[in-house]
Amino acid sequence: MADDERLARQIEFALEIDKLKRVVRQTWHLDRSRKENDAEHSWHLAVMAVLLAEYAAEPGLDLARVVKMVLVHDLVEIDAGDTFVYDKVALRDKPEREEAAAKRLFGMLPEDQAAEFRGLWEEYEARQTPEARYAAGLDRLQPLLHNYHTGGRTWLEHGVRSADVLARNRHMADGAPRLWQFAEELIRDAVRKGYLAQ
Amino acid sequence: MADDERLARQIEFALEIDKLKRVVRQTWHLDRSRKENDAEHSWHLAVMAVLLAEYAAEPGLDLARVVKMVLVHDLVEIDAGDTFVYDKVALRDKPEREEAAAKRLFGMLPEDQAAEFRGLWEEYEARQTPEARYAAGLDRLQPLLHNYHTGGRTWLEHGVRSADVLARNRHMADGAPRLWQFAEELIRDAVRKGYLAQ
Repeated sequence: MADDERLARQIEFALEIDKLKRVVRQTWHLDRSRKENDAEHSWHLAVMAVLLAEYAAEPGLDLARVVKMVLVHDLVEIDAGDTFVYDKVALRDKPEREEAAAKRLFGMLPEDQAAEFRGLWEEYEARQTPEARYAAGLDRLQPLLHNYHTGGRTWLEHGVRSADVLARNRHMADGAPRLWQFAEELIRDAVRKGYLAQ
Repeated sequence: MADDERLARQIEFALEIDKLKRVVRQTWHLDRSRKENDAEHSWHLAVMAVLLAEYAAEPGLDLARVVKMVLVHDLVEIDAGDTFVYDKVALRDKPEREEAAAKRLFGMLPEDQAAEFRGLWEEYEARQTPEARYAAGLDRLQPLLHNYHTGGRTWLEHGVRSADVLARNRHMADGAPRLWQFAEELIRDAVRKGYLAQ
């Protein structure tokens, strides 16, 4: 591939991913002004990955790969949309929708980078490496913090119960046990305060 | 500092930086629906840092540090606000406003992390390392792409002229010469198409 063609494809991809800024999630901003989008969420996770690295289960993990992973982990939602983690129906065909999205989006890139970006996304989804487990834990902690600090807004809106929250978020313990301990306290306190149904 | 107190401060910081999602910039989303915010912008730069790393002037640069730098480079705008790069009046007291913001924001962190985050921000601002020069180049390229692909919306809105754009963005050549070459073509084409005043 000529140099010009390579750069053109990379720029096309950079323009395409602007769309992630318009994929709206269920998490509210802390001032309750609106729901956040995937680009904001991905940025927040990336900073938290650096900030909280000392709590990763594996101390020697590759933080740079964690950051790359969280930066691209939601890109497939440009086509597939955000699937609410407590929506059992929508979760059913999530893998098919996201696989098609990955094919189209990462396929825009030069071959070597398509493989790199797709690899990061697959590693994140599989949760088989310390990096992916830590990244996935952060992806659970951030909305939990937002739910707690907005009086359980999303939980109450969707009738989510504490047993669901515990079940869906427990894997945080594999990636960052101290953060899961912190999160469990938050969940218990949310129930006490009426932010989350028992 | 006790472990609990350390984690509490880190979580406070994670909550505080949610505010970056509400600092609005002059750059329009590509679908022209609204102006983007600093969190979206920082995420976009971080992905572009990975995507375009091969064009950095220094091939052996520390990409992980570049990514960290762009993730935190705008945090001070939580207090100081976004200063439009072509607003000569607002640029005058920008350093003072941002210094006060850095003191407050990074001061929320445990001491070692306050030093790390502040160090990244200072390195970015000083543009004395290959990492900072590449990061600063991306920070100029992304809004340029958006301006071009929205028919020069921000340029026309503010009466920006091509000489200003060339002067303000030329430092991209120090961090990523091939990207500056690409950007110069874009600027010339923007003038031809009437997106940008001669």
